[in-house]
Amino acid sequence: MKVLVVLAHPDPRSFNGSLFQVSVNELKAQGHQVKTSDLYLMKWKAEIDRADFPDLATDARLKVPYASRDSYTTGNLTEDIKTEQEKLLWADVVILHFPLWWYTMPAILKGWVERVFSMGFAYGVGEHSDKHYGDRYGEGVFAGKRAMLVVTAGGQKEHFSTRGIAGHIDDLLFPINHGVLYYPGFQVLPSHVVYQTDRLDEVGFEKEAEALREKLRHLDTIEPIAFRPQNGGDYEIPSLTLKPGLEGKNARGFSIHIRDSGVAKNE
Amino acid sequence: MKVLVVLAHPDPRSFNGSLFQVSVNELKAQGHQVKTSDLYLMKWKAEIDRADFPDLATDARLKVPYASRDSYTTGNLTEDIKTEQEKLLWADVVILHFPLWWYTMPAILKGWVERVFSMGFAYGVGEHSDKHYGDRYGEGVFAGKRAMLVVTAGGQKEHFSTRGIAGHIDDLLFPINHGVLYYPGFQVLPSHVVYQTDRLDEVGFEKEAEALREKLRHLDTIEPIAFRPQNGGDYEIPSLTLKPGLEGKNARGFSIHIRDSGVAKNE
Repeated sequence: MKVLVVLAHPDPRSFNGSLFQVSVNELKAQGHQVKTSDLYLMKWKAEIDRADFPDLATDARLKVPYASRDSYTTGNLTEDIKTEQEKLLWADVVILHFPLWWYTMPAILKGWVERVFSMGFAYGVGEHSDKHYGDRYGEGVFAGKRAMLVVTAGGQKEHFSTRGIAGHIDDLLFPINHGVLYYPGFQVLPSHVVYQTDRLDEVGFEKEAEALREKLRHLDTIEPIAFRPQNGGDYEIPSLTLKPGLEGKNARGFSIHIRDSGVAKNE
Repeated sequence: MKVLVVLAHPDPRSFNGSLFQVSVNELKAQGHQVKTSDLYLMKWKAEIDRADFPDLATDARLKVPYASRDSYTTGNLTEDIKTEQEKLLWADVVILHFPLWWYTMPAILKGWVERVFSMGFAYGVGEHSDKHYGDRYGEGVFAGKRAMLVVTAGGQKEHFSTRGIAGHIDDLLFPINHGVLYYPGFQVLPSHVVYQTDRLDEVGFEKEAEALREKLRHLDTIEPIAFRPQNGGDYEIPSLTLKPGLEGKNARGFSIHIRDSGVAKNE
């Protein structure tokens, strides 16, 4: 397979950066083709702004979605953005490595999403009718590809459990897994999360490295999160609200958007 | 009162940028002292990296939390960061204006949080004991201050309702309201959200501007979101899990961390 591995950590010697290297090495050892986007190494520009849209007239108001669509359509996006879009189109699997900072991805990775996921490319595509509300949430440019997050967190696992004060890790990552990855069509694998990484020594690291390698050996067979396709009949259109009675008995919050989510949920 | 208003949009003529100006004008008209942080205008650097920590030896591994704590403690953070910290300490109320991009705040604002909310300042503070797990979630440097989000979204309100495909807006904003603002001590007011801003004309804008002005007239009396204080008895320590039976009958997901949340929830 062809795998794109993205890293958003400023030090390659960090726990997260070291896991990124584990991924790259293991995937190559398995015979996969690997490309990387080490965002800090690339000095990735996080802020989306006028400079990203050479087509935009100097005095024109910047409407970000439309400016990105226009420059995407004419092929005039900046080279750094086009390069990332090509990597995404090339890949069968995309893996995002990042530390959980303030309960979500680092700014540099958020800025990668904002700048690379242009309108006309990753959103704002597909027909709109009374049965179909654009190609999104299960459809779109990345349909047929898989994606997975590899996340390191300083806090304890219990703090991210169902009753944990931070909120459940699956809920914290939902806006990324569902809103950023499933939205443009990726099948999203359950996230690989490592807790209390500040406390882990070399033995602890090697144990976590092996757990990640084991996961990577099954990238093509791991069951994706069963998010509900937007146009698959579970939602009213155009209100895009879940039809009554479809959620599992115990499903709540974000998890109603996962099929059979009332049955089992990791604690 | 002293109010800090932050904006994260690259065009001041945008719907969001215009609402920012409405806030600034209205607050001044009410006699408040106002400071602003227009992040794009300031060319705010979003990526946290070694350059932020002049104290860090060139060959030292960058551990972001500890590097930020060390440079905060010695007073050697960069000037742009120190200026924002001073504004935050000055303010009685902080208002964050931003468009919802990929279901959360723009990268430039996330980078403002990462760089300005240093360890030793906004986290990693307070005693740890069997009754107290640091000054966080209701305690901390910003205790006694209030904060509020003003958010514009392209999508329809129903898409962000309890059964809406995007997830409930309160849940999408929970990692910011609870994890970024309540964590270092802010009392967090319910978010002010405007939907389908792409579709609103001048009449629609003026109606929304007036709704915001009305909200701003009651900044000091609006009831904050009733997040549960971490050290107030509702959580086990150190697991930081909500004690059994405390959540409202219908509370689910993130909302269990809000007192009486089972009673009423905006649809």
